[in-house]
Amino acid sequence: MKVFTGISALYTPFERLEQAAIAVRDGRISWMGPEGALPAEYRSWPREDLGGRGVLPGLVDAHTHLVYAGSRLEEYLRRAQGESYEAFLEAGGGIHRTVRATQAASEEELLNLARARLRKLLAGGVTTVEIKSGYGLTVEHEIRLLRVIRRLGEEGPCRVFPTFLAHVIPTGWEREAYIQAITEELIPEVARGRLAEAVDVFCDRGGFTLDETRQILEAALRHGLRIKAHAEQFERTGATRLLSELGGLSADHLEATIPEDWKALAQSGTVGVILPVAAVVLRKPLPDARRMWDAGVKVAVATDHNPGSSPVYSLLLALQLAVALGGLSVEEALVAGTANAALALGKPELGRLINGAMADFLVVNSREALELFYWWGDSMVHSVYVAGERVYPHQ
Amino acid sequence: MKVFTGISALYTPFERLEQAAIAVRDGRISWMGPEGALPAEYRSWPREDLGGRGVLPGLVDAHTHLVYAGSRLEEYLRRAQGESYEAFLEAGGGIHRTVRATQAASEEELLNLARARLRKLLAGGVTTVEIKSGYGLTVEHEIRLLRVIRRLGEEGPCRVFPTFLAHVIPTGWEREAYIQAITEELIPEVARGRLAEAVDVFCDRGGFTLDETRQILEAALRHGLRIKAHAEQFERTGATRLLSELGGLSADHLEATIPEDWKALAQSGTVGVILPVAAVVLRKPLPDARRMWDAGVKVAVATDHNPGSSPVYSLLLALQLAVALGGLSVEEALVAGTANAALALGKPELGRLINGAMADFLVVNSREALELFYWWGDSMVHSVYVAGERVYPHQ
Repeated sequence: MKVFTGISALYTPFERLEQAAIAVRDGRISWMGPEGALPAEYRSWPREDLGGRGVLPGLVDAHTHLVYAGSRLEEYLRRAQGESYEAFLEAGGGIHRTVRATQAASEEELLNLARARLRKLLAGGVTTVEIKSGYGLTVEHEIRLLRVIRRLGEEGPCRVFPTFLAHVIPTGWEREAYIQAITEELIPEVARGRLAEAVDVFCDRGGFTLDETRQILEAALRHGLRIKAHAEQFERTGATRLLSELGGLSADHLEATIPEDWKALAQSGTVGVILPVAAVVLRKPLPDARRMWDAGVKVAVATDHNPGSSPVYSLLLALQLAVALGGLSVEEALVAGTANAALALGKPELGRLINGAMADFLVVNSREALELFYWWGDSMVHSVYVAGERVYPHQ
Repeated sequence: MKVFTGISALYTPFERLEQAAIAVRDGRISWMGPEGALPAEYRSWPREDLGGRGVLPGLVDAHTHLVYAGSRLEEYLRRAQGESYEAFLEAGGGIHRTVRATQAASEEELLNLARARLRKLLAGGVTTVEIKSGYGLTVEHEIRLLRVIRRLGEEGPCRVFPTFLAHVIPTGWEREAYIQAITEELIPEVARGRLAEAVDVFCDRGGFTLDETRQILEAALRHGLRIKAHAEQFERTGATRLLSELGGLSADHLEATIPEDWKALAQSGTVGVILPVAAVVLRKPLPDARRMWDAGVKVAVATDHNPGSSPVYSLLLALQLAVALGGLSVEEALVAGTANAALALGKPELGRLINGAMADFLVVNSREALELFYWWGDSMVHSVYVAGERVYPHQ
């Protein structure tokens, strides 16, 4: 039990409250409002003064590939010289290179690498992270990655949302046989072991076709898992509409979507997750976040952290790019990195500061909470709290 | 006297050397080459082992407005909602708002604010920073800012290149009278007191016309100062060709330039400084750095740090954006942030690691020096040296 005071301004993120106080019991917000209106029952609780600083909901990174070994620096340099991402993928490099390095690494190595990455995200104010498998490919290796992801969540302090990703057809496999392995072996085992909450499919050139995507997603639904997809990144495949039809949590990427796809998302409530750093690094235009938002899509923004197309440790930078290049306002970007991102994980109790929600928040080193978004290439994160406990910096 | 060893790879930046050693005497590089070829005379010198890490020339930030007080957060939020930068400027906000806050601050306050900013740049590997005045406007206040800039340079450890900037016509002044004050009072006093090495003019809508710019720059040249300009940011004014004609050090911004302007820069050797963060924040297209480079322009990249259009503390981020959105390769971006940036300050002894040059360099926390450019929103700067002395982190 604790009451947080000394909050100059707080964003829920939908509303701004001045001089707020937050009462936390068992990790959840039991009361929130103007400090002067604190009900009598909370007045005897222990207090923590946040020093007249701004408070925002903890950021939610709804799309990462955080568990991998190896570097793709050489590919990065060659792409900057003009070679294409798809060409590396088709030539057995790209994702396949990361798969080889990841398969060769021990579970302990993978855990240490991912933990260090998770800590960097946390230092930037991220309190919940979706982490996908996908660099294992074989049943055995995918299960191993999902075990690593489970351990990251058990360790904390970040909340982890585990997703099994059907990424690419492994070298040497026949397509149908691999899809059968996914739908008849992997997904049932993932569901039995509660190793993932959702299944994601990379539906694009170099990945899975729309029909294959449907097979995999329907298998996931049959086993009680939620669904997502990498949709319309390079080609317009129809994955966004498929997700909307099947009640998916989110359709992610969306570079090649058209207004018809946005309408489907708006109607279904499937979240549209945009990944601005991947678009920038791959020298592609960002999806038109402004028009998507205006079309009624619940837009979220994520890092897409991965060693190929999005080697980034700052969700804030992704949000700033969504403002500058995607046309969102700062207030909208905040919603896209908190409440909407939590909806992309099916977790309305995260990413917002309201009664009953989890007390995950970040303290900005300024009276103006939105100043976090103003400075580029710098961090104004003062401290980070998960379930009402300070987790960054370490006490 | 010292010999640095344990350098896995070094970029001059034009060439890559493996297993290099650098001998430093009196702050300058007296010998550089493969560690195995170290001449006998250097073998008895004290050594410092850099631990098998990569080394790059210290970064040079060739365009900043680092000395100011006050915040422009509110304007930033409103611009993100769709209001225009020029509208704020024309309504007496924007730059004028910063001028009011800066005039109201004490010299000590301005020094403390700028010092903190300079330290953030240094932590990102920047060893030389150009700093412009320009938020004082009156003779007295501009001189005051230039004194602050001089003190920053005297304090170190960053090298500081001071520039007097003719920014905008102050509220209540008549244009001709103000230009006369600049050319007949300010510039002579700046030259007498050695308060600046160069004069810069904001030649654009809301600033000075091309004719006024010529008057100011010619006065600067008469007083032995070097010249620069904010050229073609919003409108194509002809400032780029004027700079080329007058032998300017650099023409900066260049968003509205056309191939004819690039040809003038290429022929004159005037450096073209692009400012990617300002373009991104103002939601304008970047100049086509790729085509400028191919047209023979010496392209440099700078932060343009200022509280309005480019509130950024990371030159690395500006360089990464020049790669992703401007089409440069990583190797070219490195040149743009080191050797070419030093040329924009008329300092060929900076920004490169060759015999006789200043021993300013940064150590990357990787065997691969270019890995610095690979990770976004994170810093792989291990340590920074100016004149052969470690200045970051503090020893």
